[in-house]
Amino acid sequence: MDQRLSLLTLGVSDLDRARRFYESLGWSGKSPDGDIWLFQLNGMILGLWDRAKLAEDTVVEDTGGWGGITLCQWVSSNEEVDAILTNAEAAGGSIGRPGFQRYWGYTGLFFDPDGNPWEVIHHPGWTLDEHGATRMR
Amino acid sequence: MDQRLSLLTLGVSDLDRARRFYESLGWSGKSPDGDIWLFQLNGMILGLWDRAKLAEDTVVEDTGGWGGITLCQWVSSNEEVDAILTNAEAAGGSIGRPGFQRYWGYTGLFFDPDGNPWEVIHHPGWTLDEHGATRMR
Repeated sequence: MDQRLSLLTLGVSDLDRARRFYESLGWSGKSPDGDIWLFQLNGMILGLWDRAKLAEDTVVEDTGGWGGITLCQWVSSNEEVDAILTNAEAAGGSIGRPGFQRYWGYTGLFFDPDGNPWEVIHHPGWTLDEHGATRMR
Repeated sequence: MDQRLSLLTLGVSDLDRARRFYESLGWSGKSPDGDIWLFQLNGMILGLWDRAKLAEDTVVEDTGGWGGITLCQWVSSNEEVDAILTNAEAAGGSIGRPGFQRYWGYTGLFFDPDGNPWEVIHHPGWTLDEHGATRMR
């Protein structure tokens, strides 16, 4: 199995609301069928789809809440972490924890309107290449 | 906020078991601190970390189970979908649904030992570029 991820799908309760939230952050995507919404990211695709349909397709019972997976975006400064959290809250998300310094770098966390968690970090030990790929040293 | 993902962290109950599972599928990674295990993927990093620590770090209550997020890997043939599912089961995962044909392509799904779901698909409308990036048309 290749060491790569192609698609990450987030279950949402209101597709239009979820799409508008990510569009408010500056993202742009499209739907192939009016049912799932797809954003082309660096090297992979992020999908928004009805959570009940995603649960059925994933062959799981959905008891609600968090399921052990957290997303993260690396950015190039502490100030950018703070700015993204401010924008996410203004767009209808909520702040899980404001930015603060850990031993390895600066970190904050927001939730999208469906509770999907995004940590936003400035980790000086990681870099971003010309293709938007985050690389660890 | 840039349209990209840098890190996806999967909560696991036994880090060594989880690491061995992905290594059995052919993956190779490293740990910066003996606590989190990181695999460099195409354009991003996939992390394995203790689920209780990840829940605390994510500022969520963990009630167990699935949380509305499903991973997916695109591969270049139906036969590769079947082969990956067979390998995942042999490595200690479980098959959620065997490969079968949908209108848009061929799809199967396995769970890693912690229940993190991986759909494996051959979707003829998507392509893989020279950097390992999955692209939709």
